[in-house]
Amino acid sequence: MDSSRRSNVLVCPAYQEFPRNHWYVVAFSHEVKRELLARRVLGEMLVLYRTENGEPVAVADRCPHRGMPLSKGKLVGDAVQCGYHGFQFGKSGACVGIPSQDAIPSKMAVHAYPLVEKWQWIWAWMGDPAKADPALIPDHHALGLGREGYTASTVFCMEIKANYQLLHENLLDTSHITYLHPQQLDASADAANAGEATFQAEYEDGLIRIWRAMPGTRPNPAMARLYRLPQGEPVDRVLMTETYPPNLSVVSNIFREPGRSDGPPKVHVIASMPVTPASPRLTYQFLAVATSYPESRTPQQNEHVWNVFAQDRDALEAIQLGFDELGPDAPEFSVKADQAALRCRQMITDLVQRERIMA
Amino acid sequence: MDSSRRSNVLVCPAYQEFPRNHWYVVAFSHEVKRELLARRVLGEMLVLYRTENGEPVAVADRCPHRGMPLSKGKLVGDAVQCGYHGFQFGKSGACVGIPSQDAIPSKMAVHAYPLVEKWQWIWAWMGDPAKADPALIPDHHALGLGREGYTASTVFCMEIKANYQLLHENLLDTSHITYLHPQQLDASADAANAGEATFQAEYEDGLIRIWRAMPGTRPNPAMARLYRLPQGEPVDRVLMTETYPPNLSVVSNIFREPGRSDGPPKVHVIASMPVTPASPRLTYQFLAVATSYPESRTPQQNEHVWNVFAQDRDALEAIQLGFDELGPDAPEFSVKADQAALRCRQMITDLVQRERIMA
Amino acid sequence: MDSSRRSNVLVCPAYQEFPRNHWYVVAFSHEVKRELLARRVLGEMLVLYRTENGEPVAVADRCPHRGMPLSKGKLVGDAVQCGYHGFQFGKSGACVGIPSQDAIPSKMAVHAYPLVEKWQWIWAWMGDPAKADPALIPDHHALGLGREGYTASTVFCMEIKANYQLLHENLLDTSHITYLHPQQLDASADAANAGEATFQAEYEDGLIRIWRAMPGTRPNPAMARLYRLPQGEPVDRVLMTETYPPNLSVVSNIFREPGRSDGPPKVHVIASMPVTPASPRLTYQFLAVATSYPESRTPQQNEHVWNVFAQDRDALEAIQLGFDELGPDAPEFSVKADQAALRCRQMITDLVQRERIMA
Repeated sequence: MDSSRRSNVLVCPAYQEFPRNHWYVVAFSHEVKRELLARRVLGEMLVLYRTENGEPVAVADRCPHRGMPLSKGKLVGDAVQCGYHGFQFGKSGACVGIPSQDAIPSKMAVHAYPLVEKWQWIWAWMGDPAKADPALIPDHHALGLGREGYTASTVFCMEIKANYQLLHENLLDTSHITYLHPQQLDASADAANAGEATFQAEYEDGLIRIWRAMPGTRPNPAMARLYRLPQGEPVDRVLMTETYPPNLSVVSNIFREPGRSDGPPKVHVIASMPVTPASPRLTYQFLAVATSYPESRTPQQNEHVWNVFAQDRDALEAIQLGFDELGPDAPEFSVKADQAALRCRQMITDLVQRERIMA
Repeated sequence: MDSSRRSNVLVCPAYQEFPRNHWYVVAFSHEVKRELLARRVLGEMLVLYRTENGEPVAVADRCPHRGMPLSKGKLVGDAVQCGYHGFQFGKSGACVGIPSQDAIPSKMAVHAYPLVEKWQWIWAWMGDPAKADPALIPDHHALGLGREGYTASTVFCMEIKANYQLLHENLLDTSHITYLHPQQLDASADAANAGEATFQAEYEDGLIRIWRAMPGTRPNPAMARLYRLPQGEPVDRVLMTETYPPNLSVVSNIFREPGRSDGPPKVHVIASMPVTPASPRLTYQFLAVATSYPESRTPQQNEHVWNVFAQDRDALEAIQLGFDELGPDAPEFSVKADQAALRCRQMITDLVQRERIMA
Repeated sequence: MDSSRRSNVLVCPAYQEFPRNHWYVVAFSHEVKRELLARRVLGEMLVLYRTENGEPVAVADRCPHRGMPLSKGKLVGDAVQCGYHGFQFGKSGACVGIPSQDAIPSKMAVHAYPLVEKWQWIWAWMGDPAKADPALIPDHHALGLGREGYTASTVFCMEIKANYQLLHENLLDTSHITYLHPQQLDASADAANAGEATFQAEYEDGLIRIWRAMPGTRPNPAMARLYRLPQGEPVDRVLMTETYPPNLSVVSNIFREPGRSDGPPKVHVIASMPVTPASPRLTYQFLAVATSYPESRTPQQNEHVWNVFAQDRDALEAIQLGFDELGPDAPEFSVKADQAALRCRQMITDLVQRERIMA
């Protein structure tokens, strides 16, 4: 297609390679136990478990001998024993036992993924192990995780049958809460709402920030319950998304007394969402929430949030089906509000490009 | 493959383009209401609804902004509001509202399909709107729809997971009623039956007509009930198919007193079947029946017809699976009775070819 | 890929052509009756039935007229009548009737597969009919079928969604019984087990034989029950696989009094497993068992064997999924115990190659 005809049209990058030299959340801490957990990440199969000392381990979930998924085997001490012919692999990925012979060929090994367990996440390095630097994991203080004055908890992991970039872009244009989640995350229609709110964006190295100001919003019942606000009383709201491509988006809600834009937030809610591509068309959206008030979350709250996130999931899956049918060149016409989302696409494209050049 | 080896063998055209500059029935009138109805036609997604004045509308079911199906949104007056970011599109397809900004780019629009509502059908023009001429819609008088002395009603729409040409060809060789619908649409085995009846074919511009004469047929219980004939008494039957490629087949049953071949029909039943490709492998078969007797159809009759048509559906789907596996060049050996079906293929091929040349 | 980098690595041949000039078991005798049975073999659809005289027949399951599966029709005497337009085909595959005309074109025919019914198997020749020699069917005496002093019965046919070569290879490395079927086909962990047993292999023309010696094995309850051995008393066991590529594997269990390696077997159990590819990713595993003791098998025994074979099926299907995702070049690292399996691959590759050259 003639690219000059495509001004204001962007190709959906849903089919490009993944940036691999990054940490991705592959599980909550509590999911990884003394049993084998299979999980797909960036198109690869991993098997996760803990050693007898509690150390988390992730190795490739395919026996190099005959291709049997190791996750169908069992733990023998700190090693995984393949359930087909009994080959064993230790936490470094090296084969440590072949029943039918004594000699172990050095090539008989599986890839071991560098892991870091931080707060209640297991982060896995999906690229060149030599480059795995724990300092590249996002600052957890900014996420309110383990931060004084904040109460934080894991909520759930949602599977979305859509490309992960569609999820970042969903979170980078929060005006959608007015239309996709009416009467839920948004105020009632007669109050200031996200769909029509003024917005600003700014860009730092590796970070995209967009925020919408909604002065004098009057929380409806669902919104008031979710954010612990008095229903119907006006409040100044700022809705902010910070995306760290390719693996994390953070949505913050800041509520202040009306007109007190510089004051400390009355309520501050930080939703951290590590975004992990399982494959080009399947995404894990992990969720942890930190709040400036001390009470812990109720099951009802979590169920409400699940139902709301499921609306996003359904929308993204419908959009993905369209791309699957029309192909990655399916046209999209962007408007001003898409600036941040497009910047996110560009940053991910650059990350992939840089890895290609350096490979 | 050497084409000289393929005499009497025709390639199934199930995988060619569709003729697009035609009216196709996309819904019964009663299906289109003040709510959004998604329907796939010629590989495209349409969303159908009525304006506040009752006018039917069909626009492309994909928001040009971020690819969300518009059918997942809602009606706001005469416009569709996208359920993701709230963009609105009017009945002409033009965008009439973007919540986050005032200016509306002219390219922000969806295709609007020309529609004609006639009798109880919604016909959509799937090609170049400039060529949409309502005069090209088949003559409804010939179909017995709205014709004096005939009682007509819609029956159902059947979805068939097979190419639409297989359905036209099924209807153009009605000898199959003896084998696929034994004791149902055909007389008993000891009477004159369609499978062995003499047949004739004639061709007009845009029309294929084939008919089988079955003199002295004795209706069995099922056939007598369906066509309101005395069971077991001989009757001269003519079974006729008229196909207007690519979008309509009409099957008529004409029963006369024995030996009164020129007299007026005792019973005349016209089954009009608009045939609409949803995709190369999915077809909608709409059905309306007009009869020369005044009583309206019973639910039992309609259920019986559904069960019979489902036998055709099952056969066509089994044949389609074979083509899917063997590819479009899977051989077919034709006999004399296939003449009309092959003519239909040729006419559709010509229609597609002509559109290509003119494009 | 540079083949020099692939020492000790073999490409899975799961995607190559099938050797076609061979007899394959397509059904048990009792499955073929006076009704139509559809079965897929080597990627082709067959329809099986018996003539009025009881002779088994297999013809291609696709009407050459319009592609309808003949198995959806019915038997009329010794012919199959297509359920669409009533064309009839005799046991030789020739068309013997077209309702709408008297003349029958000679090309209107379906392929008839040479069949041999032997013991309780129906063997079909899937290649050039001119080469179909019944002498090529494996010697049933060696299988204990119809052999004096042995009791034989059919057990079941298991469908496995994996390439047939994976099944032969599974049976050619029986060390897997220790890990995939613990406490079932193997002795208890403290006794000599197959996983660590010494093994030997030998190769004849068209035959691969591998056996493992397990002296002093103490049968656990499940193993004792299955092989009619006193539980916990030591016994010398030999576990032998004989594979006749591409269509048969035979697993024999021979139990002797401890130290009496040359004596007659105390118990001899022969499991004959015709292996028939339905398609590259679907395999039929037929099973018949002959035993040196006279009692017939109980339903409990057969259910136990089904459950054990289902563990193999699940493993092979998991491995196949990996190949489907990674492609046929997915690496495998072989060890000494894989020698026989690799020989089997090579023999099948040679069979296919030879057919290509001779075609």
